[in-house]
Amino acid sequence: MTVVRLLLAYDGTGFHGWARQPRVRTVQGVVEDALARFLGERPVLSVAGRTDAGVHAAGQVASFVWPAPVDVDRVQRALNGMLGPEVACLRATRAADGFDARRSATAREYVYRIHTGAAADPFRSRYEWHRPERLALAPMRAAARHLVGAHDFRSFCRLPPDGGATTRTLRTLSASAAGERLEIRAVADSFLHQMVRSLTGTLVAAGSGRLDPGEVPRILEARRRDAAAQMAPPHGLTLMRVRYRANG
Amino acid sequence: MTVVRLLLAYDGTGFHGWARQPRVRTVQGVVEDALARFLGERPVLSVAGRTDAGVHAAGQVASFVWPAPVDVDRVQRALNGMLGPEVACLRATRAADGFDARRSATAREYVYRIHTGAAADPFRSRYEWHRPERLALAPMRAAARHLVGAHDFRSFCRLPPDGGATTRTLRTLSASAAGERLEIRAVADSFLHQMVRSLTGTLVAAGSGRLDPGEVPRILEARRRDAAAQMAPPHGLTLMRVRYRANG
Repeated sequence: MTVVRLLLAYDGTGFHGWARQPRVRTVQGVVEDALARFLGERPVLSVAGRTDAGVHAAGQVASFVWPAPVDVDRVQRALNGMLGPEVACLRATRAADGFDARRSATAREYVYRIHTGAAADPFRSRYEWHRPERLALAPMRAAARHLVGAHDFRSFCRLPPDGGATTRTLRTLSASAAGERLEIRAVADSFLHQMVRSLTGTLVAAGSGRLDPGEVPRILEARRRDAAAQMAPPHGLTLMRVRYRANG
Repeated sequence: MTVVRLLLAYDGTGFHGWARQPRVRTVQGVVEDALARFLGERPVLSVAGRTDAGVHAAGQVASFVWPAPVDVDRVQRALNGMLGPEVACLRATRAADGFDARRSATAREYVYRIHTGAAADPFRSRYEWHRPERLALAPMRAAARHLVGAHDFRSFCRLPPDGGATTRTLRTLSASAAGERLEIRAVADSFLHQMVRSLTGTLVAAGSGRLDPGEVPRILEARRRDAAAQMAPPHGLTLMRVRYRANG
Protein backbone atom coordinates (compact mmCIF):
# COMPACT_ATOMS: atom_id res chain seq x y z
CA MET A 1 0.00 0.00 0.00
CA THR A 2 1.31 3.45 -0.90
CA VAL A 3 0.29 6.83 0.48
CA VAL A 4 1.02 9.54 -2.09
CA ARG A 5 1.28 13.17 -1.06
CA LEU A 6 0.93 15.93 -3.67
CA LEU A 7 1.91 19.59 -3.35
CA LEU A 8 -0.27 21.53 -5.80
CA ALA A 9 -0.58 25.08 -7.09
CA TYR A 10 -3.46 26.30 -9.20
CA ASP A 11 -5.12 29.33 -10.69
CA GLY A 12 -8.70 28.96 -9.44
CA THR A 13 -10.19 31.31 -12.04
CA GLY A 14 -11.44 28.57 -14.34
CA PHE A 15 -12.66 26.15 -11.65
CA HIS A 16 -15.78 25.72 -9.56
CA GLY A 17 -13.56 25.26 -6.54
CA TRP A 18 -11.70 22.20 -5.27
CA ALA A 19 -14.49 19.72 -4.46
CA ARG A 20 -15.65 17.32 -7.16
CA GLN A 21 -19.20 18.03 -8.31
CA PRO A 22 -21.24 16.61 -11.16
CA ARG A 23 -21.17 18.50 -14.48
CA VAL A 24 -18.81 21.31 -13.46
CA ARG A 25 -15.05 21.62 -13.72
CA THR A 26 -13.33 21.38 -10.33
CA VAL A 27 -9.69 21.01 -9.31
CA GLN A 28 -10.33 17.71 -7.54
CA GLY A 29 -12.14 16.50 -10.65
CA VAL A 30 -9.33 17.27 -13.11
CA VAL A 31 -6.58 15.99 -10.79
CA GLU A 32 -8.42 12.73 -10.04
CA ASP A 33 -9.19 12.26 -13.73
CA ALA A 34 -5.52 12.80 -14.63
CA LEU A 35 -4.45 10.33 -11.93
CA ALA A 36 -7.01 7.84 -13.26
CA ARG A 37 -5.46 8.05 -16.73
CA PHE A 38 -2.04 7.42 -15.22
CA LEU A 39 -2.98 4.73 -12.66
CA GLY A 40 -5.71 2.98 -14.58
CA GLU A 41 -8.28 3.62 -11.88
CA ARG A 42 -9.47 6.75 -10.11
CA PRO A 43 -8.15 7.40 -6.59
CA VAL A 44 -10.07 9.54 -4.10
CA LEU A 45 -8.13 12.56 -2.94
CA SER A 46 -8.09 13.92 0.58
CA VAL A 47 -7.27 17.65 0.64
CA ALA A 48 -6.08 20.12 3.26
CA GLY A 49 -8.06 23.14 2.03
CA ARG A 50 -11.34 22.81 0.15
CA THR A 51 -10.96 26.08 -1.75
CA ASP A 52 -14.10 27.75 -3.11
CA ALA A 53 -14.84 28.68 -6.71
CA GLY A 54 -12.32 31.29 -7.88
CA VAL A 55 -9.92 30.83 -4.95
CA HIS A 56 -6.29 30.01 -5.79
CA ALA A 57 -3.66 27.79 -4.18
CA ALA A 58 0.10 28.20 -4.13
CA GLY A 59 0.72 25.32 -1.69
CA GLN A 60 -2.28 23.02 -1.50
CA VAL A 61 -1.68 19.50 -0.17
CA ALA A 62 -3.66 16.45 -1.30
CA SER A 63 -3.12 12.75 -0.68
CA PHE A 64 -4.44 9.36 -1.70
CA VAL A 65 -3.92 5.76 -0.72
CA TRP A 66 -3.06 3.26 -3.46
CA PRO A 67 -3.02 -0.52 -3.17
CA ALA A 68 0.15 -0.91 -5.29
CA PRO A 69 3.59 0.72 -5.51
CA VAL A 70 3.57 4.14 -7.23
CA ASP A 71 6.44 5.86 -9.05
CA VAL A 72 5.92 9.33 -7.60
CA ASP A 73 8.29 11.10 -10.03
CA ARG A 74 6.27 9.78 -12.94
CA VAL A 75 3.06 10.85 -11.18
CA GLN A 76 4.42 14.39 -10.96
CA ARG A 77 5.49 14.50 -14.61
CA ALA A 78 2.19 12.99 -15.76
CA LEU A 79 0.13 15.52 -13.80
CA ASN A 80 2.16 18.46 -15.09
CA GLY A 81 1.94 17.17 -18.64
CA MET A 82 -1.84 16.78 -18.46
CA LEU A 83 -2.80 19.75 -16.25
CA GLY A 84 -0.18 22.50 -16.75
CA PRO A 85 -0.07 25.44 -16.71
CA GLU A 86 -3.38 25.90 -14.87
CA VAL A 87 -2.56 23.30 -12.22
CA ALA A 88 1.02 22.49 -11.22
CA CYS A 89 2.21 19.52 -9.22
CA LEU A 90 5.18 21.06 -7.39
CA ARG A 91 6.08 17.85 -5.57
CA ALA A 92 4.90 14.26 -5.32
CA THR A 93 6.25 12.14 -2.49
CA ARG A 94 5.57 8.90 -0.68
CA ALA A 95 4.12 9.67 2.77
CA ALA A 96 4.11 7.67 5.99
CA ASP A 97 1.31 5.15 6.51
CA GLY A 98 -1.65 6.90 8.06
CA PHE A 99 -0.84 10.29 6.52
CA ASP A 100 -3.95 12.07 5.34
CA ALA A 101 -3.73 15.55 3.79
CA ARG A 102 -6.81 16.77 5.61
CA ARG A 103 -6.72 14.99 8.96
CA SER A 104 -2.96 15.25 9.48
CA ALA A 105 -2.79 19.00 8.80
CA THR A 106 -2.11 21.13 11.87
CA ALA A 107 -2.60 24.56 10.28
CA ARG A 108 -3.63 26.33 7.07
CA GLU A 109 -2.25 29.69 5.94
CA TYR A 110 -4.16 31.96 3.56
CA VAL A 111 -3.29 35.33 2.04
CA TYR A 112 -5.88 37.80 0.79
CA ARG A 113 -4.47 40.42 -1.64
CA ILE A 114 -5.94 43.88 -2.18
CA HIS A 115 -4.82 46.51 -4.68
CA THR A 116 -5.82 50.09 -3.88
CA GLY A 117 -4.33 51.85 -6.94
CA ALA A 118 -6.49 53.93 -9.28
CA ALA A 119 -6.32 51.47 -12.19
CA ALA A 120 -6.47 47.67 -11.93
CA ASP A 121 -3.19 45.92 -12.72
CA PRO A 122 -3.70 43.84 -15.90
CA PHE A 123 -1.07 41.31 -14.78
CA ARG A 124 -2.37 40.67 -11.27
CA SER A 125 -6.08 41.40 -11.50
CA ARG A 126 -6.95 37.70 -11.42
CA TYR A 127 -5.21 37.34 -8.05
CA GLU A 128 -6.08 40.50 -6.13
CA TRP A 129 -9.17 42.50 -5.25
CA HIS A 130 -8.95 45.86 -6.97
CA ARG A 131 -10.54 48.40 -4.68
CA PRO A 132 -9.42 51.93 -5.52
CA GLU A 133 -9.84 53.45 -2.06
CA ARG A 134 -7.24 54.07 0.64
CA LEU A 135 -7.45 51.66 3.56
CA ALA A 136 -6.09 52.63 6.96
CA LEU A 137 -4.01 49.83 8.49
CA ALA A 138 -4.45 50.83 12.16
CA PRO A 139 -8.21 50.13 12.39
CA MET A 140 -7.76 46.93 10.36
CA ARG A 141 -5.20 45.75 12.89
CA ALA A 142 -7.41 46.83 15.78
CA ALA A 143 -10.29 44.80 14.32
CA ALA A 144 -7.99 41.83 13.77
CA ARG A 145 -6.89 41.82 17.42
CA HIS A 146 -10.48 41.11 18.46
CA LEU A 147 -10.66 38.15 16.09
CA VAL A 148 -7.41 36.32 16.89
CA GLY A 149 -7.83 33.45 19.33
CA ALA A 150 -10.42 30.76 19.95
CA HIS A 151 -13.92 31.96 19.09
CA ASP A 152 -17.22 30.80 17.74
CA PHE A 153 -16.92 32.20 14.18
CA ARG A 154 -20.57 31.63 13.29
CA SER A 155 -20.88 35.29 12.19
CA PHE A 156 -17.98 34.81 9.78
CA CYS A 157 -18.86 31.72 7.79
CA ARG A 158 -21.45 29.77 5.89
CA LEU A 159 -22.85 27.28 8.37
CA PRO A 160 -21.53 23.73 8.08
CA PRO A 161 -24.25 21.63 6.39
CA ASP A 162 -23.83 18.89 8.99
CA GLY A 163 -24.40 21.26 11.90
CA GLY A 164 -20.74 20.87 12.91
CA ALA A 165 -18.92 23.07 15.39
CA THR A 166 -18.16 26.66 14.38
CA THR A 167 -15.43 27.26 16.93
CA ARG A 168 -11.94 27.71 15.54
CA THR A 169 -8.60 28.97 16.80
CA LEU A 170 -7.36 31.83 14.65
CA ARG A 171 -3.62 31.98 15.36
CA THR A 172 -2.75 34.91 13.09
CA LEU A 173 -4.76 37.63 11.39
CA SER A 174 -2.47 40.39 10.19
CA ALA A 175 -2.58 43.21 7.68
CA SER A 176 0.48 44.66 5.96
CA ALA A 177 0.90 47.16 3.15
CA ALA A 178 3.52 47.96 0.51
CA GLY A 179 2.63 50.95 -1.61
CA GLU A 180 -0.77 50.42 -3.20
CA ARG A 181 -0.86 46.77 -2.17
CA LEU A 182 -2.25 45.29 0.99
CA GLU A 183 -2.09 41.72 2.26
CA ILE A 184 -4.17 40.04 4.93
CA ARG A 185 -2.61 36.87 6.30
CA ALA A 186 -4.69 34.35 8.22
CA VAL A 187 -3.47 31.20 9.95
CA ALA A 188 -5.72 28.76 11.83
CA ASP A 189 -5.91 25.12 12.74
CA SER A 190 -8.66 24.94 10.16
CA PHE A 191 -11.10 27.40 8.64
CA LEU A 192 -14.85 27.37 8.20
CA HIS A 193 -16.45 27.81 4.81
CA GLN A 194 -15.95 31.39 3.48
CA MET A 195 -14.29 32.35 6.76
CA VAL A 196 -11.18 34.13 5.39
CA ARG A 197 -13.25 36.12 2.92
CA SER A 198 -15.66 37.09 5.71
CA LEU A 199 -12.84 38.15 8.03
CA THR A 200 -11.31 40.13 5.14
CA GLY A 201 -14.60 41.90 4.44
CA THR A 202 -14.81 43.01 8.06
CA LEU A 203 -11.19 44.19 8.15
CA VAL A 204 -11.78 46.16 4.94
CA ALA A 205 -14.89 47.76 6.46
CA ALA A 206 -12.73 48.84 9.41
CA GLY A 207 -9.95 50.12 7.12
CA SER A 208 -12.34 52.20 5.06
CA GLY A 209 -13.94 53.77 8.14
CA ARG A 210 -17.35 52.12 7.72
CA LEU A 211 -16.90 49.96 10.83
CA ASP A 212 -15.57 50.90 14.23
CA PRO A 213 -13.12 48.14 15.28
CA GLY A 214 -14.71 48.27 18.73
CA GLU A 215 -17.85 46.75 17.19
CA VAL A 216 -16.08 43.50 16.34
CA PRO A 217 -16.70 41.73 19.68
CA ARG A 218 -20.43 42.41 19.24
CA ILE A 219 -20.30 40.91 15.72
CA LEU A 220 -18.69 37.76 17.14
CA GLU A 221 -21.29 37.56 19.90
CA ALA A 222 -24.18 38.04 17.49
CA ARG A 223 -23.51 34.61 15.90
CA ARG A 224 -25.45 35.75 12.87
CA ARG A 225 -23.84 36.21 9.54
CA ASP A 226 -25.67 39.44 8.72
CA ALA A 227 -23.92 41.06 11.69
CA ALA A 228 -20.60 40.98 9.81
CA ALA A 229 -19.59 43.13 6.85
CA GLN A 230 -20.01 41.80 3.31
CA MET A 231 -17.39 39.20 2.50
CA ALA A 232 -14.60 39.87 0.02
CA PRO A 233 -14.73 38.33 -3.49
CA PRO A 234 -12.99 34.97 -4.02
CA HIS A 235 -10.30 35.91 -6.54
CA GLY A 236 -8.14 37.84 -4.04
CA LEU A 237 -7.68 34.73 -1.88
CA THR A 238 -4.84 32.20 -2.11
CA LEU A 239 -4.15 29.16 0.08
CA MET A 240 -0.42 29.62 0.65
CA ARG A 241 0.67 26.75 2.82
CA VAL A 242 -0.44 23.81 4.92
CA ARG A 243 1.50 22.81 8.00
CA TYR A 244 2.01 19.28 9.34
CA ARG A 245 3.85 17.87 12.29
CA ALA A 246 7.56 17.42 11.64
CA ASN A 247 7.03 13.74 10.78
CA GLY A 248 3.87 14.42 8.71
CA MET B 1 -5.60 71.90 -30.14
CA THR B 2 -4.62 69.35 -27.50
CA VAL B 3 -2.01 66.61 -27.68
CA VAL B 4 -2.91 63.82 -25.24
CA ARG B 5 -0.31 61.32 -24.09
CA LEU B 6 -1.38 57.99 -22.57
CA LEU B 7 0.71 55.56 -20.54
CA LEU B 8 -0.87 52.13 -20.96
CA ALA B 9 -0.41 48.62 -19.56
CA TYR B 10 -2.15 45.57 -20.97
CA ASP B 11 -2.31 41.82 -20.87
CA GLY B 12 -1.91 40.92 -24.55
CA THR B 13 -3.35 37.40 -24.17
CA GLY B 14 -6.80 38.28 -25.46
CA PHE B 15 -5.74 40.64 -28.26
CA HIS B 16 -4.59 40.29 -31.84
CA GLY B 17 -1.81 42.74 -31.08
CA TRP B 18 -1.82 46.54 -30.93
CA ALA B 19 -2.66 47.57 -34.47
CA ARG B 20 -6.30 48.06 -35.44
CA GLN B 21 -7.51 45.44 -37.92
CA PRO B 22 -10.95 44.67 -39.27
CA ARG B 23 -12.99 42.00 -37.48
CA VAL B 24 -10.46 41.14 -34.73
CA ARG B 25 -9.99 42.53 -31.24
CA THR B 26 -6.88 44.70 -30.95
CA VAL B 27 -5.61 47.02 -28.22
CA GLN B 28 -5.65 50.04 -30.53
CA GLY B 29 -9.20 49.11 -31.50
CA VAL B 30 -10.58 48.91 -27.95
CA VAL B 31 -8.73 52.03 -26.76
CA GLU B 32 -9.82 54.11 -29.76
CA ASP B 33 -13.40 52.86 -29.37
CA ALA B 34 -13.40 53.79 -25.68
CA LEU B 35 -11.99 57.23 -26.48
CA ALA B 36 -14.68 57.65 -29.16
CA ARG B 37 -17.40 56.96 -26.57
CA PHE B 38 -15.85 59.58 -24.31
CA LEU B 39 -14.97 62.25 -26.90
CA GLY B 40 -17.88 61.76 -29.28
CA GLU B 41 -15.61 61.00 -32.19
CA ARG B 42 -12.79 58.53 -32.74
CA PRO B 43 -9.22 59.81 -32.51
CA VAL B 44 -6.33 58.05 -34.29
CA LEU B 45 -3.65 56.85 -31.91
CA SER B 46 0.06 56.99 -32.58
CA VAL B 47 1.94 54.35 -30.60
CA ALA B 48 5.55 53.78 -29.56
CA GLY B 49 5.56 49.96 -29.82
CA ARG B 50 3.26 48.09 -32.20
CA THR B 51 3.15 44.93 -30.09
CA ASP B 52 2.26 41.65 -31.81
CA ALA B 53 -0.58 39.29 -30.93
CA GLY B 54 -0.03 37.89 -27.43
CA VAL B 55 2.68 40.40 -26.47
CA HIS B 56 2.11 42.44 -23.28
CA ALA B 57 2.90 46.01 -22.28
CA ALA B 58 3.71 47.43 -18.85
CA GLY B 59 4.63 50.91 -20.13
CA GLN B 60 3.28 51.49 -23.64
CA VAL B 61 2.93 55.11 -24.79
CA ALA B 62 0.24 56.29 -27.21
CA SER B 63 -0.83 59.78 -28.23
CA PHE B 64 -3.47 61.61 -30.23
CA VAL B 65 -4.19 65.13 -31.35
CA TRP B 66 -7.59 66.60 -30.54
CA PRO B 67 -9.08 69.83 -31.93
CA ALA B 68 -10.63 70.87 -28.59
CA PRO B 69 -9.55 71.00 -24.93
CA VAL B 70 -9.50 67.61 -23.17
CA ASP B 71 -9.87 66.88 -19.45
CA VAL B 72 -7.10 64.30 -19.18
CA ASP B 73 -8.06 63.12 -15.70
CA ARG B 74 -11.52 62.26 -16.95
CA VAL B 75 -9.97 60.52 -19.97
CA GLN B 76 -7.96 58.31 -17.61
CA ARG B 77 -10.95 57.44 -15.43
CA ALA B 78 -13.14 56.77 -18.46
CA LEU B 79 -10.57 54.44 -20.03
CA ASN B 80 -10.06 52.50 -16.80
CA GLY B 81 -13.79 52.24 -16.27
CA MET B 82 -14.37 50.89 -19.77
CA LEU B 83 -11.23 48.78 -20.32
CA GLY B 84 -10.01 47.54 -16.94
CA PRO B 85 -8.62 45.23 -15.80
CA GLU B 86 -7.30 43.95 -19.14
CA VAL B 87 -6.03 47.39 -20.22
CA ALA B 88 -4.98 50.04 -17.69
CA CYS B 89 -4.41 53.71 -18.34
CA LEU B 90 -1.66 54.44 -15.81
CA ARG B 91 -1.39 58.11 -16.75
CA ALA B 92 -3.01 60.61 -19.13
CA THR B 93 -1.27 63.95 -19.62
CA ARG B 94 -1.29 66.92 -21.94
CA ALA B 95 1.87 66.81 -24.09
CA ALA B 96 3.76 69.59 -25.86
CA ASP B 97 2.67 70.55 -29.37
CA GLY B 98 4.38 68.31 -31.86
CA PHE B 99 4.68 65.35 -29.48
CA ASP B 100 4.01 62.06 -31.20
CA ALA B 101 4.28 58.78 -29.26
CA ARG B 102 5.98 56.99 -32.17
CA ARG B 103 8.10 59.68 -33.81
CA SER B 104 9.23 61.36 -30.59
CA ALA B 105 10.38 58.14 -28.91
CA THR B 106 14.14 57.75 -28.61
CA ALA B 107 14.25 54.17 -27.31
CA ARG B 108 12.10 51.15 -26.52
CA GLU B 109 12.85 48.64 -23.76
CA TYR B 110 11.51 45.07 -23.84
CA VAL B 111 11.87 42.19 -21.40
CA TYR B 112 11.50 38.54 -22.39
CA ARG B 113 10.79 36.20 -19.45
CA ILE B 114 11.68 32.51 -19.35
CA HIS B 115 10.86 30.00 -16.62
CA THR B 116 13.05 26.88 -16.53
CA GLY B 117 11.38 25.05 -13.60
CA ALA B 118 9.96 21.54 -13.96
CA ALA B 119 6.30 22.63 -13.74
CA ALA B 120 4.77 25.75 -15.27
CA ASP B 121 3.77 28.41 -12.73
CA PRO B 122 -0.04 28.78 -12.85
CA PHE B 123 0.18 32.44 -11.80
CA ARG B 124 2.76 33.59 -14.32
CA SER B 125 2.33 31.23 -17.24
CA ARG B 126 0.60 33.89 -19.33
CA TYR B 127 3.64 36.15 -19.04
CA GLU B 128 6.63 33.85 -19.34
CA TRP B 129 7.87 31.10 -21.64
CA HIS B 130 7.92 27.84 -19.70
CA ARG B 131 10.87 25.84 -20.98
CA PRO B 132 11.91 23.17 -18.47
CA GLU B 133 15.57 22.96 -19.49
CA ARG B 134 18.62 24.54 -17.90
CA LEU B 135 20.03 27.45 -19.87
CA ALA B 136 23.67 28.47 -19.46
CA LEU B 137 24.05 32.23 -19.14
CA ALA B 138 27.65 32.49 -20.37
CA PRO B 139 26.97 31.43 -23.99
CA MET B 140 23.79 33.53 -24.05
CA ARG B 141 25.84 36.56 -23.07
CA ALA B 142 28.55 35.68 -25.59
CA ALA B 143 25.93 35.51 -28.33
CA ALA B 144 24.42 38.81 -27.16
CA ARG B 145 27.77 40.59 -27.42
CA HIS B 146 27.82 39.89 -31.17
CA LEU B 147 24.35 41.41 -31.56
CA VAL B 148 24.69 44.67 -29.62
CA GLY B 149 25.48 47.69 -31.78
CA ALA B 150 24.40 48.91 -35.22
CA HIS B 151 23.68 46.01 -37.57
CA ASP B 152 21.47 44.97 -40.42
CA PHE B 153 19.04 42.73 -38.48
CA ARG B 154 17.46 41.23 -41.59
CA SER B 155 18.12 37.70 -40.23
CA PHE B 156 16.21 38.57 -37.04
CA CYS B 157 12.91 40.02 -38.25
CA ARG B 158 9.99 39.75 -40.55
CA LEU B 159 10.83 42.02 -43.50
CA PRO B 160 9.13 45.42 -43.47
CA PRO B 161 6.29 45.29 -46.02
CA ASP B 162 7.36 48.64 -47.50
CA GLY B 163 10.93 47.47 -48.15
CA GLY B 164 12.17 49.80 -45.36
CA ALA B 165 15.63 49.71 -43.85
CA THR B 166 16.51 46.77 -41.58
CA THR B 167 19.43 48.43 -39.81
CA ARG B 168 18.93 49.18 -36.14
CA THR B 169 21.10 50.11 -33.19
CA LEU B 170 20.71 47.59 -30.40
CA ARG B 171 21.94 49.41 -27.29
CA THR B 172 21.42 46.63 -24.76
CA LEU B 173 20.87 42.90 -25.01
CA SER B 174 21.44 41.26 -21.64
CA ALA B 175 20.52 38.02 -19.92
CA SER B 176 20.13 37.64 -16.17
CA ALA B 177 18.89 34.81 -13.99
CA ALA B 178 17.34 34.43 -10.54
CA GLY B 179 16.70 30.83 -9.56
CA GLU B 180 14.56 29.17 -12.20
CA ARG B 181 13.77 32.48 -13.91
CA LEU B 182 15.67 34.15 -16.69
CA GLU B 183 15.16 37.58 -18.22
CA ILE B 184 16.42 38.93 -21.51
CA ARG B 185 16.40 42.72 -21.70
CA ALA B 186 16.63 44.50 -25.04
CA VAL B 187 16.87 48.24 -25.65
CA ALA B 188 17.08 49.86 -29.08
CA ASP B 189 16.18 53.10 -30.83
CA SER B 190 13.43 51.05 -32.45
CA PHE B 191 12.85 47.39 -33.21
CA LEU B 192 11.91 45.55 -36.38
CA HIS B 193 8.88 43.30 -36.49
CA GLN B 194 9.42 40.13 -34.36
CA MET B 195 12.99 41.23 -33.65
CA VAL B 196 13.08 40.73 -29.84
CA ARG B 197 11.50 37.29 -30.15
CA SER B 198 14.04 36.35 -32.84
CA LEU B 199 16.99 37.58 -30.78
CA THR B 200 15.59 35.66 -27.80
CA GLY B 201 15.28 32.47 -29.85
CA THR B 202 18.93 32.72 -30.84
CA LEU B 203 20.09 33.44 -27.27
CA VAL B 204 18.09 30.44 -26.03
CA ALA B 205 19.69 28.24 -28.72
CA ALA B 206 23.10 29.37 -27.43
CA GLY B 207 22.09 28.80 -23.79
CA SER B 208 20.90 25.28 -24.47
CA GLY B 209 24.05 24.33 -26.37
CA ARG B 210 22.40 24.00 -29.77
CA LEU B 211 24.21 27.04 -31.16
CA ASP B 212 27.84 28.07 -30.81
CA PRO B 213 27.87 31.80 -29.97
CA GLY B 214 30.72 32.17 -32.45
CA GLU B 215 28.20 31.46 -35.22
CA VAL B 216 26.22 34.63 -34.52
CA PRO B 217 28.25 36.95 -36.80
CA ARG B 218 27.60 34.54 -39.69
CA ILE B 219 23.86 34.60 -38.93
CA LEU B 220 23.91 38.42 -39.08
CA GLU B 221 25.85 38.35 -42.36
CA ALA B 222 23.52 35.79 -43.93
CA ARG B 223 20.67 38.34 -43.99
CA ARG B 224 18.25 35.47 -44.28
CA ARG B 225 15.76 34.67 -41.61
CA ASP B 226 16.25 30.90 -41.81
CA ALA B 227 19.86 31.41 -40.71
CA ALA B 228 18.67 32.35 -37.21
CA ALA B 229 17.19 30.02 -34.58
CA GLN B 230 13.44 29.68 -34.23
CA MET B 231 11.92 32.71 -32.58
CA ALA B 232 10.47 32.59 -29.06
CA PRO B 233 6.66 32.57 -28.55
CA PRO B 234 4.93 35.93 -28.02
CA HIS B 235 3.55 35.52 -24.50
CA GLY B 236 6.95 35.81 -22.77
CA LEU B 237 7.48 39.31 -24.17
CA THR B 238 6.55 42.60 -22.47
CA LEU B 239 7.19 46.16 -23.65
CA MET B 240 8.48 47.69 -20.41
CA ARG B 241 9.22 51.31 -21.18
CA VAL B 242 9.55 53.92 -23.88
CA ARG B 243 12.08 56.70 -23.57
CA TYR B 244 11.72 60.28 -24.79
CA ARG B 245 13.94 63.33 -24.69
CA ALA B 246 13.70 65.19 -21.39
CA ASN B 247 11.20 67.64 -22.88
CA GLY B 248 9.23 64.90 -24.70
